[in-house]
Amino acid sequence: MTINSINGSFARMLSSTATQTAVATPLKVFYLSDTSDYSLVVSITLMVTLLCVCMVIGHLFEENRWVNESITALILGLFAGFIVLISTQGNNSHVLQFDEELFFIYLLPPIIFNAGFQVKKKQFFRNFVAIVLFGVIGVFISFGIIAAGSGLIFPLFNLEGLGIRDFLALGVIFSATDSVCTLQVLNQDETPLLYSLVFGEGVVNDATSVVLYRAVENLDLSEVDALAILQILGEFIYLFLTSTLLGIAVGLLSAYVIKKLYFGRHSTDREIAVMILMAYLSYILAELLYLSGILTVFFCGIVMSHYTWHNVTESSRITTRHTFATLSFIAETFIFLYVGMDALDKDKWDMTEVSISTSIGLCATLIALVLVGRAAFVIPLSAASNLARRGVGTEISFRQQIIIWWAGLMRGAVSMALAYKKFTANSAIYATMITCTILVVLFSTVVFGLLTKPLLRWLIHPHITDVLEPETPKVPRVSSGDMNISLLEDGEPAHHPNATSKDRVLDRSSSTVHHLWRKFDDSFMRPVFGGRGFVLPFHRSHNGEVQDSRSSDHFDHEG
Amino acid sequence: MTINSINGSFARMLSSTATQTAVATPLKVFYLSDTSDYSLVVSITLMVTLLCVCMVIGHLFEENRWVNESITALILGLFAGFIVLISTQGNNSHVLQFDEELFFIYLLPPIIFNAGFQVKKKQFFRNFVAIVLFGVIGVFISFGIIAAGSGLIFPLFNLEGLGIRDFLALGVIFSATDSVCTLQVLNQDETPLLYSLVFGEGVVNDATSVVLYRAVENLDLSEVDALAILQILGEFIYLFLTSTLLGIAVGLLSAYVIKKLYFGRHSTDREIAVMILMAYLSYILAELLYLSGILTVFFCGIVMSHYTWHNVTESSRITTRHTFATLSFIAETFIFLYVGMDALDKDKWDMTEVSISTSIGLCATLIALVLVGRAAFVIPLSAASNLARRGVGTEISFRQQIIIWWAGLMRGAVSMALAYKKFTANSAIYATMITCTILVVLFSTVVFGLLTKPLLRWLIHPHITDVLEPETPKVPRVSSGDMNISLLEDGEPAHHPNATSKDRVLDRSSSTVHHLWRKFDDSFMRPVFGGRGFVLPFHRSHNGEVQDSRSSDHFDHEG
Repeated sequence: MTINSINGSFARMLSSTATQTAVATPLKVFYLSDTSDYSLVVSITLMVTLLCVCMVIGHLFEENRWVNESITALILGLFAGFIVLISTQGNNSHVLQFDEELFFIYLLPPIIFNAGFQVKKKQFFRNFVAIVLFGVIGVFISFGIIAAGSGLIFPLFNLEGLGIRDFLALGVIFSATDSVCTLQVLNQDETPLLYSLVFGEGVVNDATSVVLYRAVENLDLSEVDALAILQILGEFIYLFLTSTLLGIAVGLLSAYVIKKLYFGRHSTDREIAVMILMAYLSYILAELLYLSGILTVFFCGIVMSHYTWHNVTESSRITTRHTFATLSFIAETFIFLYVGMDALDKDKWDMTEVSISTSIGLCATLIALVLVGRAAFVIPLSAASNLARRGVGTEISFRQQIIIWWAGLMRGAVSMALAYKKFTANSAIYATMITCTILVVLFSTVVFGLLTKPLLRWLIHPHITDVLEPETPKVPRVSSGDMNISLLEDGEPAHHPNATSKDRVLDRSSSTVHHLWRKFDDSFMRPVFGGRGFVLPFHRSHNGEVQDSRSSDHFDHEG
Repeated sequence: MTINSINGSFARMLSSTATQTAVATPLKVFYLSDTSDYSLVVSITLMVTLLCVCMVIGHLFEENRWVNESITALILGLFAGFIVLISTQGNNSHVLQFDEELFFIYLLPPIIFNAGFQVKKKQFFRNFVAIVLFGVIGVFISFGIIAAGSGLIFPLFNLEGLGIRDFLALGVIFSATDSVCTLQVLNQDETPLLYSLVFGEGVVNDATSVVLYRAVENLDLSEVDALAILQILGEFIYLFLTSTLLGIAVGLLSAYVIKKLYFGRHSTDREIAVMILMAYLSYILAELLYLSGILTVFFCGIVMSHYTWHNVTESSRITTRHTFATLSFIAETFIFLYVGMDALDKDKWDMTEVSISTSIGLCATLIALVLVGRAAFVIPLSAASNLARRGVGTEISFRQQIIIWWAGLMRGAVSMALAYKKFTANSAIYATMITCTILVVLFSTVVFGLLTKPLLRWLIHPHITDVLEPETPKVPRVSSGDMNISLLEDGEPAHHPNATSKDRVLDRSSSTVHHLWRKFDDSFMRPVFGGRGFVLPFHRSHNGEVQDSRSSDHFDHEG
C-alpha cells in the first residue's frame, strides 16, 4: 500500500464529487483553488459534520443499553460511504482507503495518553502481573491458534497464493485487541477490575504485536528453534522496558520543568501547551527510537497525572483533564467513522476473485478462530492466576472470565492497519484477505460491541457482589502482597458497608509494595518532581487574578 | 506550486536525514516502516521539540521588552533550518517548503477563532466603522501604491518577465497585514483601542484581499473601467455580509443545540467537543462556499462567546476558554517556526538569477512601498474619522496613528502563501519574487516586530492619558451614538478616577445602539439561544458530582 498522508487520503476521498462541484459554481475559491485542495475542504466538511451528528446521536442515545458512540459512528460512516459511492456512480475507486499514518500518528496517541492519564493507578498496578500475563502469553497463544487454524482450514476453500508467512501474519493481525473499543464498552467506574484487566492487556498487547510482527517478517522459516523463540522473548522484554522507561522519563521531565520554571506564573496557556506537547513528544520519540509508542505514551500519561498535573495551576488542571478527555473522545469517534467509510474500498472488493459464499466462509472461520483463540488463553491464564491467589480469596470468577473473553474480542483499526501493511501486493488473494479483515472488524465491532453492554448487565449487574466481592469469600491471609490480582474495588467501598472489614484486610495484603512505593515517592520523588500536595506559592496569574493552586483538588487521582 | 499535504510536506522535510538514520539502524520500525513515514516521524519530533523549546524560551524572556514568542520562534526556525541544511550537505532541495494547506486549513482557524472568542466585544463594535474603513479603503489604497510603485521602480533593476498582472499581485501580496503578528505585539488589556483597530482591520483585510486577488486574476486588462471597480466593491460587500452571516448562523446553531439538548447532563466532554467541532465547521463551511473563512470563524467566535459559552457547564467554560487560547498559541508559534525554517528554500535561492545587490534593492523597494502604502491610508483615514468625531473629542491622536501604522507593517504567512500561489511557474524571475517575499517577511517580522514594544512604551506609556483620554478634551456632546470610534477605555476606568465623569457621558453617547441591541438581545435572542445568566438547572454530571452552572462566572465577556 502506498502510504498516503492525512490530506492525501482526504484529498483522494470524494475527489470526483469535489470536481463536479467545482465545475458547477462560477466562483473561484481564493486560497484553496486547486481541485485537490478543494476536495480536501469537501471531505473535512463531511467528516466534521458527521462527527457533530455522532455527538448528537450519542447524546440522545446515552441511556440506551445497546448503542454506544463507536457503533453509531461505524454505522454512520458506512452509510456516508454508501452515499458517496452512489453519488459518484461508483467512480471513487481510490476513495475511502484506510490510512495507517493518520491513525498511528494523529488519532491513536491522544486516546492512549488519555487512558493512562485517567486510569485508576492503584487498580492498574495491583493487577499488573495478570495484565502482563494476558498481554504477553495470551497474545502468543491466540497468535498460535489463529495462525495454525487458518493454515489448516483456509486451504479447504481452494485458495492459492498464501504461504506460511501469510498465515503467521493473519495470526498477528487477528490477535491485536482493539483497546479503543474496550474503552467504549467497559466503564472504569462500574467495573474497575475488568476495565483494568482488559484495557491494560490491550496496551501491553501492542508491544507484543510489535515484536511478533517484526519476528514474523524477519523469521528464517527454515530454522525455527528454541533459540529463535527465546530471542523473540528477549526482544519483547527489551521493548517493554525501554518503552516504559522512555514514557516515565518524558513524564518526569515535564513535571520537573513545569515545577522548576513555574510556567503558571506568566501564563496558564503555556503550561497547558507544554503538557500537551510533551505528551505527544513521548509518543513520537518512541516511534523515532523504534519502540512501542503506545506503551510509552500510556506510561507518560500515568506519570503526568501523578506528578505534572499537580504542579500546574487550578484552571490548567481542569482544562487539561477535560481537554485530554475531549481530544481522545473526538479521535475515537473519528476512527470509527473512518473505519465505517473505509469498508467500501471498491478497488479491493473488485479485485477479490472469490465468491460471496467463500468470503463468508473465510470470515466465519476467522471469527471462530478469534473466539477460540481468546478463550484458549483467558480461561487457563485466569485459572493460573486464581491458583496463585486462591488463599486470598480473590479469584477471577467464571462470569468475569466470560466478560474478559468477550470484551477483548473486538478487532479494530489496529487490525486494519496491519492488514493493509501486510497485504500490499496487488494480487487477488491479498485483496481477499483485506476485505475479510474489513468484514471481521465490522462484524466484531458491531455484533460483539452491541452485545457487550447487555451481556455485562446480564452477568454482572444482578450479581454485583460477584465483582465487588469474591464468589468464595474465604478468610483472607495477610501475606506477601505483590502486585497481584485483587478484586478489591477501592473506588466504591461505600456501596457495600458489609465489605469494609474484608476490604481493610485485603488492603493490607496488597499494601506492602504500595507502602514501600509511597515511602520512596514521598522521600525522593515528590521533592524533585512535585505531585499531589505540591505547594505552589500564591501567585498572580497573567490576567491579574489571584489563584491558589492548592485549593480544591477537583480531580484526585488515587495512589 | 504543487499543493502538498501536511504530511506530504512534512515527509519531504528532512527526507534525506531520515533516510540516513533509517539506514544506520538495524531495527525496522513497526507500523511506520516506510521511509516517507519515518521521515514524517523525524520531522514531527523536530517540530514538537522546537515548539517546547520556544515555550521555555518565551517563558524565560517573558519580562523582556524586546523579545516576543514570534521572534523567538522565527529565529529558532531559521537556526534549525540552517542546521538541517548543513547536516544534509545542502541536499534537502525540496525540503522546508511553505505549505498553504497546512497554514490555511489547520493553523489559521484556531488563531482567528480564538481572537473572536476572546475579543472585547463592546470595544470592537464601537470601532466598527473605523475598522471597516481601514480594512477596506485602506487595503485598496495600499494595494494601489505598492502595485504602481513596484511597476515603476522594478523595471529600473533590469528585470524581465514581469507583467502588469504580476505587479498587481505584488500589490495584493504586500497589502495583506499579518493579523497573527498583531496579536503578539499589541495587548488587548493595555491598549484596547489600538488592538481592536489594528486587529479588526487585519480580519476585514482578509476579505478585501480575497476579492482583490480574485479580481486581479480575472481582470480583463484591456477594459478596466468604473463598472469593473464597482463590481469589485459589490462583490466585497456580498462576501463580507455572507461570511459574517454564516459565522453568526453557525455560532447561534451551536448555542441552540447545546442549550436545547443540554449536553452537559451526560458528559462535559461532548459539550466541549461540539463547541470545538462547530467552530471549525464554520471555517471549513465558509471555504466550501467560497467565502472568507477568516471572517466567518471570527464572527462565529464572537457569537459563541456571547451565547454558547454561557450555556455549558462551569468546567466546560474554564476548559474551552483555556483550550482555545492554548491551541491558538501553539498554532501561532508553529507558524513562525515554520516560516523561519521555510526561509531556506534552497531550490528558490538556487533558481534566482539576480545578484545579491539587486535582491537587496528589490526588498528595500518593497519595504519602502509597504511603509509608504500604509502611511498613505492610516493618516488620511484617521483624519477622516477624526473629522467625523471632532465634536465628541474622541480623535485618534497622532501618536496613536503612528502605532496603528507601525503595528500593521508586519507581513507574514498570508503573504508567503499568496506569493507561493501566484509565482508558481518555474522561472527565474518568479523564484526571485518568492525569495524577495521571504526576505520582506523575515525583515518586517523581526525588525518591525522587535521595535514595536519599545515604540509603544516610548510613545504611549509615559503619556498613558493619550490613550485613555483624548488629547483635546472638549465638552462632549451627548448625541447620535453610532458604532463609532471612541477612545473610551471601558476596561480600565478605575486607573483614572478623574476620568469617570467624562467616561459616563461618553458612555451615554455611544450607548444608544448598544441599548437597542441589549433590548433586542434580552427579549428575542437570549430566550432562544441562552447567553449570560442562562439558567441551567442544577444537575448531576456524568461522573456524579453536582455542578451548578450558574455559579462564579470566571470569564465574563462584556456586552
